[in-house]
Amino acid sequence: MFPFKYYAPTKVLFGRDTELKVAEMIRLFGGTKVLIHYGGGSVIRSGLMKRVTDTLDAAGIAYISLGGAVPNPRLSLVYEGIELCKREGIDFLLAVGGGSAIDSAKAIGYGVYNGGDVWDFYDGKRKAAGCLPLGVILTLSATGSEMSDSSVITKEEGLIKRGYSSDYGRAKFALLNPELTMTLPDYQTACGCADIMMHTMERYFTGGATLQLTDAIAEALLRTVMTNAEILVKDPKSYDARAEVMWAGSLSHNGLTGFGSDGGDWMTHKLEHELGGLYDVAHGAGLTAIWGSWARYVYRDCLPRFRRFAVNVMGVEAVGTDEEIALKGIEAMEAFYRRIHMPTNLRELGVNPTEDELKEMARKCAIGVGGAKGSARLLREADMLAIYRASM
Amino acid sequence: MFPFKYYAPTKVLFGRDTELKVAEMIRLFGGTKVLIHYGGGSVIRSGLMKRVTDTLDAAGIAYISLGGAVPNPRLSLVYEGIELCKREGIDFLLAVGGGSAIDSAKAIGYGVYNGGDVWDFYDGKRKAAGCLPLGVILTLSATGSEMSDSSVITKEEGLIKRGYSSDYGRAKFALLNPELTMTLPDYQTACGCADIMMHTMERYFTGGATLQLTDAIAEALLRTVMTNAEILVKDPKSYDARAEVMWAGSLSHNGLTGFGSDGGDWMTHKLEHELGGLYDVAHGAGLTAIWGSWARYVYRDCLPRFRRFAVNVMGVEAVGTDEEIALKGIEAMEAFYRRIHMPTNLRELGVNPTEDELKEMARKCAIGVGGAKGSARLLREADMLAIYRASM
Repeated sequence: MFPFKYYAPTKVLFGRDTELKVAEMIRLFGGTKVLIHYGGGSVIRSGLMKRVTDTLDAAGIAYISLGGAVPNPRLSLVYEGIELCKREGIDFLLAVGGGSAIDSAKAIGYGVYNGGDVWDFYDGKRKAAGCLPLGVILTLSATGSEMSDSSVITKEEGLIKRGYSSDYGRAKFALLNPELTMTLPDYQTACGCADIMMHTMERYFTGGATLQLTDAIAEALLRTVMTNAEILVKDPKSYDARAEVMWAGSLSHNGLTGFGSDGGDWMTHKLEHELGGLYDVAHGAGLTAIWGSWARYVYRDCLPRFRRFAVNVMGVEAVGTDEEIALKGIEAMEAFYRRIHMPTNLRELGVNPTEDELKEMARKCAIGVGGAKGSARLLREADMLAIYRASM
Repeated sequence: MFPFKYYAPTKVLFGRDTELKVAEMIRLFGGTKVLIHYGGGSVIRSGLMKRVTDTLDAAGIAYISLGGAVPNPRLSLVYEGIELCKREGIDFLLAVGGGSAIDSAKAIGYGVYNGGDVWDFYDGKRKAAGCLPLGVILTLSATGSEMSDSSVITKEEGLIKRGYSSDYGRAKFALLNPELTMTLPDYQTACGCADIMMHTMERYFTGGATLQLTDAIAEALLRTVMTNAEILVKDPKSYDARAEVMWAGSLSHNGLTGFGSDGGDWMTHKLEHELGGLYDVAHGAGLTAIWGSWARYVYRDCLPRFRRFAVNVMGVEAVGTDEEIALKGIEAMEAFYRRIHMPTNLRELGVNPTEDELKEMARKCAIGVGGAKGSARLLREADMLAIYRASM
């Protein structure tokens, strides 16, 4: 196994009405003037925003709001948020929403704390020395940003989507009320489940050593999300199923399911980032559209893990050669994606890139990872292009 | 499921030589003058203490030392540590050892920060408003104190053993190097494995609702510890097995394996606390000596959980009535305890209380829990006495 760091300091309150603890939590972590950052109008229409601001008003905590965070959150809004925070003397960020609002808020926090151009962090030019403290009220189980150290921002110029990870960006608190996810469209719920699973699968498919305990926890998480994703297709109002998915989402990306490995593969994410930058597709759907092609391209180089995945996660009978078992596991995962109405290729995702666009995505992807990346199999630009082509 | 809090902010560095990061970590969390608190001379004889103080010297961090923490750590040493810290202007505590040194250090931290008599917290008379910051270099995988909110102290007068839990007592960092546990006697290693498992089992045996994900993680952890505890009986120098056990120990008591339940049962711990207070037995061995009698006394009231435990953890075939399956699970656990040379009753533990002593333990246990406690089954003084008698 590899030496490892684990740091997941976010204070989580989980259950019904936990959003009403928001003022208490902001005060606990020293906030006095808050920027509430959110996405579209759904948090206003649902009444959530009013509950939050009523709670802040009652506690005498000052706040201003900034909406407009979109999936694949944009750098221009981050710049706007940074200026707003500086002008208004904001000392605490509250993201109300899913990964878009949280990631955008993290970027705002880096920008306010560190000065200079915040894109430098995402572009790999600088490291942050801190971040404004951040709290989260989660309305979408997916990215795990509420407990993770990462955020992903898209620069409009050139449509470049880049992630930045730092412990400074970990939320001080996360208020997780599964009920808040009940108004989501079924497609978004399924996208979230796919995203959650992929955070663990990226860590699971590694060519290096692992911990038995981490593997067993990862497999338990994947099976639990699959079971409950299928429940939610039929019964979207199931509180229990939404609770399982919500907690799995937080654990899937807080480091627990990769503890003791080399960090994982992450190439499905990198390949999807270029798709997401170009087409503004839902992240979870972009991942499932790519995963099967990636898996078929790399599984021979990571056969023990793909075989184990097939048997322990997908329930494939351990009969036949390792390759046969591994392939059955990949097929079973794609079948699951179809059952929760997720795409398994770009056509099903609804995009149809030209050959030149595929080449451009492969070129940008290779640049983004510094030439080559991948633990299940090291991929270079030509490999990336081959996977994009296979996913058409 | 129940509403739940999860807060495990301890920064963990895991792997070989992580103890050499101690100065960097103390500085990160603002320490300038450190009390190094430890147990016996083993950390000195092994050379660990010299590596630690060399690292602090090189970084220019001032420190003093206080040894003498013993299993079932004593209140008198805590008082001594509090006076020492006040006199020397200590602003950071570094526990080097296992649960005894960590728990004793936590108590010192509460005493210094809050003033007054620190026993008040353990006696339920006051709540702490803070704690000196604490770091840990772990040399024994067992209590999970390195990530938990709890500590247990024994007051010599009346031999009263009491726990106190507070988020303020959570360590800022924990340096986990599995190699540091290799010099332990085999009996201590096995006691640690038993303690680790019991932290999850206390949470697992509940009469209330649970999360599927938590159950699956708990079962994965228990199976992993069992596998590796048996490896360590035969191959005590296995780094990988020690790594599995060490990380399981931290996760077992940081809240993860109880997330979404009512908090668990904890009566095996409470019954053992009275034993440990009177006889100074190793905590893990005290737990295994009590558990079987507790389990047989309560399993009918918590049958679905005991049945599930038998099948998913102990690998019992799901044939027969639920009661038969549950009993087979209890027997299989006792057989496992014997395989790692742990006692399954008080005689094997090496103590032989009189009937009056049993009654006295039951009386003190009932007082300690405020009359009655238990989620698998609510136990009162008469129940406690019955379990003590059955464990003879």
